[in-house]
Amino acid sequence: MSYSFGNKLSMHVFGESHGEVVGVVVEGFPPGIGIDEPLIQGELDKRRPGVGRLVTPREESDRVSIMTGVLNGKSTGAPVTMMIRNTNAISKDYEGFRERPRPGHADLAAQIKYGGHHDIRGSGAFSGRMTAAFVMAGALARHILSSRGIGVTAHITQIGDIVAKERKGFVDGSPIKCMDPSAAERMEEEISKAISEGDSLGSKIECIIENMPIGIGEPMFDSVESIIAHGMYSIPAVKAVSFGAGFEMSRMRGSEANDEYTYDNGKVTTLTNNNGGILGGMSNGMPIVFHVAIKPTPSISKVQKTVDLEKRDNAEIRIKGRHDPCIGVRAVTVVENMAAFCIADLLLRCEDGRT
Amino acid sequence: MSYSFGNKLSMHVFGESHGEVVGVVVEGFPPGIGIDEPLIQGELDKRRPGVGRLVTPREESDRVSIMTGVLNGKSTGAPVTMMIRNTNAISKDYEGFRERPRPGHADLAAQIKYGGHHDIRGSGAFSGRMTAAFVMAGALARHILSSRGIGVTAHITQIGDIVAKERKGFVDGSPIKCMDPSAAERMEEEISKAISEGDSLGSKIECIIENMPIGIGEPMFDSVESIIAHGMYSIPAVKAVSFGAGFEMSRMRGSEANDEYTYDNGKVTTLTNNNGGILGGMSNGMPIVFHVAIKPTPSISKVQKTVDLEKRDNAEIRIKGRHDPCIGVRAVTVVENMAAFCIADLLLRCEDGRT
Amino acid sequence: MSYSFGNKLSMHVFGESHGEVVGVVVEGFPPGIGIDEPLIQGELDKRRPGVGRLVTPREESDRVSIMTGVLNGKSTGAPVTMMIRNTNAISKDYEGFRERPRPGHADLAAQIKYGGHHDIRGSGAFSGRMTAAFVMAGALARHILSSRGIGVTAHITQIGDIVAKERKGFVDGSPIKCMDPSAAERMEEEISKAISEGDSLGSKIECIIENMPIGIGEPMFDSVESIIAHGMYSIPAVKAVSFGAGFEMSRMRGSEANDEYTYDNGKVTTLTNNNGGILGGMSNGMPIVFHVAIKPTPSISKVQKTVDLEKRDNAEIRIKGRHDPCIGVRAVTVVENMAAFCIADLLLRCEDGRT
Amino acid sequence: MSYSFGNKLSMHVFGESHGEVVGVVVEGFPPGIGIDEPLIQGELDKRRPGVGRLVTPREESDRVSIMTGVLNGKSTGAPVTMMIRNTNAISKDYEGFRERPRPGHADLAAQIKYGGHHDIRGSGAFSGRMTAAFVMAGALARHILSSRGIGVTAHITQIGDIVAKERKGFVDGSPIKCMDPSAAERMEEEISKAISEGDSLGSKIECIIENMPIGIGEPMFDSVESIIAHGMYSIPAVKAVSFGAGFEMSRMRGSEANDEYTYDNGKVTTLTNNNGGILGGMSNGMPIVFHVAIKPTPSISKVQKTVDLEKRDNAEIRIKGRHDPCIGVRAVTVVENMAAFCIADLLLRCEDGRT
Repeated sequence: MSYSFGNKLSMHVFGESHGEVVGVVVEGFPPGIGIDEPLIQGELDKRRPGVGRLVTPREESDRVSIMTGVLNGKSTGAPVTMMIRNTNAISKDYEGFRERPRPGHADLAAQIKYGGHHDIRGSGAFSGRMTAAFVMAGALARHILSSRGIGVTAHITQIGDIVAKERKGFVDGSPIKCMDPSAAERMEEEISKAISEGDSLGSKIECIIENMPIGIGEPMFDSVESIIAHGMYSIPAVKAVSFGAGFEMSRMRGSEANDEYTYDNGKVTTLTNNNGGILGGMSNGMPIVFHVAIKPTPSISKVQKTVDLEKRDNAEIRIKGRHDPCIGVRAVTVVENMAAFCIADLLLRCEDGRT
Repeated sequence: MSYSFGNKLSMHVFGESHGEVVGVVVEGFPPGIGIDEPLIQGELDKRRPGVGRLVTPREESDRVSIMTGVLNGKSTGAPVTMMIRNTNAISKDYEGFRERPRPGHADLAAQIKYGGHHDIRGSGAFSGRMTAAFVMAGALARHILSSRGIGVTAHITQIGDIVAKERKGFVDGSPIKCMDPSAAERMEEEISKAISEGDSLGSKIECIIENMPIGIGEPMFDSVESIIAHGMYSIPAVKAVSFGAGFEMSRMRGSEANDEYTYDNGKVTTLTNNNGGILGGMSNGMPIVFHVAIKPTPSISKVQKTVDLEKRDNAEIRIKGRHDPCIGVRAVTVVENMAAFCIADLLLRCEDGRT
Repeated sequence: MSYSFGNKLSMHVFGESHGEVVGVVVEGFPPGIGIDEPLIQGELDKRRPGVGRLVTPREESDRVSIMTGVLNGKSTGAPVTMMIRNTNAISKDYEGFRERPRPGHADLAAQIKYGGHHDIRGSGAFSGRMTAAFVMAGALARHILSSRGIGVTAHITQIGDIVAKERKGFVDGSPIKCMDPSAAERMEEEISKAISEGDSLGSKIECIIENMPIGIGEPMFDSVESIIAHGMYSIPAVKAVSFGAGFEMSRMRGSEANDEYTYDNGKVTTLTNNNGGILGGMSNGMPIVFHVAIKPTPSISKVQKTVDLEKRDNAEIRIKGRHDPCIGVRAVTVVENMAAFCIADLLLRCEDGRT
Repeated sequence: MSYSFGNKLSMHVFGESHGEVVGVVVEGFPPGIGIDEPLIQGELDKRRPGVGRLVTPREESDRVSIMTGVLNGKSTGAPVTMMIRNTNAISKDYEGFRERPRPGHADLAAQIKYGGHHDIRGSGAFSGRMTAAFVMAGALARHILSSRGIGVTAHITQIGDIVAKERKGFVDGSPIKCMDPSAAERMEEEISKAISEGDSLGSKIECIIENMPIGIGEPMFDSVESIIAHGMYSIPAVKAVSFGAGFEMSRMRGSEANDEYTYDNGKVTTLTNNNGGILGGMSNGMPIVFHVAIKPTPSISKVQKTVDLEKRDNAEIRIKGRHDPCIGVRAVTVVENMAAFCIADLLLRCEDGRT
């Protein structure tokens, strides 16, 4: 079941980039919760292509249809099915990738694994468009979190060489979802430059989950880190996931890395948060903080070296079509909602008196 | 099932650090495979405490007992149960951690999640000693890989500020499993220094999986990255996992990050390996390369700030007992064998003609 | 994941009787298989209400839409999503069942379990209409079986007191899917009589799976019997499932019950088939034979005793609406296709060289 | 994971009949529950061979060792591992069954599925002895049920042609676990007769689960019926499982089969219990009642026809060794404890406020 994810709350994703729909069935959603459809649509809108000059000009209305599991605005306890239609697909751009696999894409492995039967139009089920399903599922999961006061937000901390130094203002106010206005400006310039050169940019995202109760996360294999990393690596283009100080931990000493405890207004808290709110795989009450690296969009218009699998010879490829110059910008919403889904699942798993 | 991991090949871990045993049941291991018990013992020995002055002086013989699933030296197809006995435990060192949680440890969250009923002796089921189960399961899984020529090796690339620059020699020849002899020497000095100061050190490990067939890994949620990261984050002290260029991807351009294809002696290969051998979540035939950050051992003998949960007041703690100054050194074997397990599971999942 | 079933091949069911759709996502369906949409539609048609005077007059066109996973008539390896629309629902019939639960229905338990938030229109997700999803998934699974020559058929062997004695002719030729024409005639009379009395009838179905390879089915918990019984008991109204001689085994002696082996034209076969083609949970090459009991449709128009949960008092109920007098007739198709799904999943699970 | 069963509470079974041990790892057992080891031992004793003249003379002490998950007599929340040692095995009796498969046994299918690598000594992992693991897991699960007042009992209702008419006295008082003393006497005679003839007897068991809360069981695939039947069919020799009136439902009318509701002392109850306490897959508050058919022990000392797979010719077989004349007698304990496990798992699954 590799298109399924989650335990107590689970999602089953279906669809293709240029097929009829992209959708998701969410199982285990509790009954009696008022469903805020505009909230789900709002999250989809943030991820949607075609908003602003910095993302792909492919336009999709991406209107969510809630097909099942909701009656009179409330969840029934039955599976919640949500889908969006695909309307603006230009599939002919993708012909030829079976013989000449695009560097940085799934083409070569998929060709061999599926014997050429996979849907390659718009990258089919390997498309970044599939992450709309993650956003719908995550936006639904947020309903569980918000009633408990848990908030999940993500923002861009790096694009190319530009690193955000500050966190201020609302991330949603920024077209590139960066909280450092000065860095954001330079990031936009960098993106424009990449566009003009037919190239793309990598990026880094920080995600923060606040107001976590203590003890969420299961021991050993279903740690908060394992579950979130599993979810994050399901997002195409993610190549690194770290918690708290992450790789910086490698050069630290224990006396520096350990987060010492103290009472703060009668509540146990830590003086630092190098462990990113997670110890022994469980939440320790501090904000959960993690980072992901998003690789540059592999589809670039520059000529690239590839092979021709038919002719069994070296070849060149120039990719046409409409592509984001920096997928990280849209990935912010995906990261955020996938994280919300992971936490909601872990939360439901321990709501039987064990936490 | 949070003590269980894997799909076609799965492991179920049981035991506690200071209980009777640490063990694992491996399900789905194919019948008729000759079991090389010395190989399994050899992997356990590499992870074993008490070997050399750079690791904890706790001594355990850690002799593997294969209890089930093997008959006349060959697997039968039934679950393979392996266990080691705990013999050298000093449990009184751990008293008091229920009231005064150790910084950097699971104590606080576990106390709340389990209502104080968890086994805290030697950190119980949260102990790094549980990773012996991962090593046994992974060493068994290597039997599946080796018959297909797939090799998995890991080595230390950083301890504190010392970074390995070269890869030469065999990692097993080095007491700290670093392939750069000059860096290794300085790392040993750094560890000695940390010991003398009652402190500990973080580290970084690189793992390489060679001779991968193309198309291993399942789409979306069971990508090679998702499965390996899930497994890695089940190892206590891992705080970061990245593939290929990892976080470096954030500052790259697509034209730099994309691994261009070429024919090399009639075989499709890539000119670079920034994607760490994985595209679209599937192996692309290049070596799988990933890095993990291991935090410094949280148990240090320096005095640390903590809280007293009984008195509801701030407090101090000085941790006694025997602890590795740099758990990364022993984690190399754990990373390596956990990776072997993940790949073996993914391999068995696609051996139905789909790859 | 209680709306999900299967391992290597899995189905995720969604929808409600009177909502927009009833559908299913099938994961793990192999790529490159030509999809015979008329076959799937044909199975749905057999289950469809409104065909013939002996079933409910509710009419639904039940046209299958294959939304994902199929391209140019062939499976792609991505999830296959199929759905039918609900068009002829009269939901007001169901008002009042929250307070006055129908005898023989899920109403009382659902009211308590879901706090009254479940969709009760047409019995919502508890409706027999949900079995259309099983039929679609099973009809898809038949594609896997038919290429291996495995056939699955079911037929009515009993309705009320009428027991079929013979097996001749095609079951599809009979409006009540009974292979004994003389019994079938009496069964039709019995059904007519039950209709006229506002009552309903129980029934018994036999299902036969022919041309099974030896060794299908997994040991212990995923035996052929466990998996088929699990699937069958997911069909509303099934109250008994037995294999081979079933309860008759209770009164047999070993010398009678054991199926002795013999060579028949160079092939190992058994002289009897009391074990219904399954030994040790695995197929032994003989036809798999099992029986299910289907309870009488609980919705009858006779006045019945119930309680009024609001008034906390005894009450009466007379159920209106359109209901099958003998759901067993339509259940034949459901049993058959659910069995096909179970066998296809077990078959894919052992196609890695272990069988 | 076919040696694993359960969701929130799960068991992982390992071992072989003539290997070192038979054991089970139980995951998901809540922390802080006092473990009554004599209770677990008591259940094992009831299942134990060698007690009384009516069962196999193989003697095993079957002393349970609780290896992990329990500290100072209370559960810790970590996996609970229990095992018994095998001590009285005579493996040579089983030689030859690879070439000449025993009628009614797994031999033929296992030989093909495992390529002859399975452990055939004492039937290995296919042995009825493996059910000791079910008993240990179920006896542990009873701790969860008993604190909620839920009781699970089973008894013999039929052996051969002898049918129990009454239910009186305690089942544990009867050597053959039949509550009808007069029938029990005749059953004992019947068994003696079968022994003297080198034959064996089938039987039927009834299991009753009392004091069920309403709403236990998950919709569709994880109904009470699906889960219990799945568990029951994992017990070797079970060939039929029915709930409530079972196959009798086939001949009933709806007006007879429906269990009408009434208030009884302020509590909703039903006037009959034809549905065996389950409606829509969920408990309705009435006792859960189900029946299983146990086939006659396939190992009989009479000469039987079989084939010689080496010589590819017909052959005869006479099975030596020590075997129960009627396995149903010992299966009573297995049925009872497996049912307890199923119900405990379903109970834990809905203890998050949804029931």
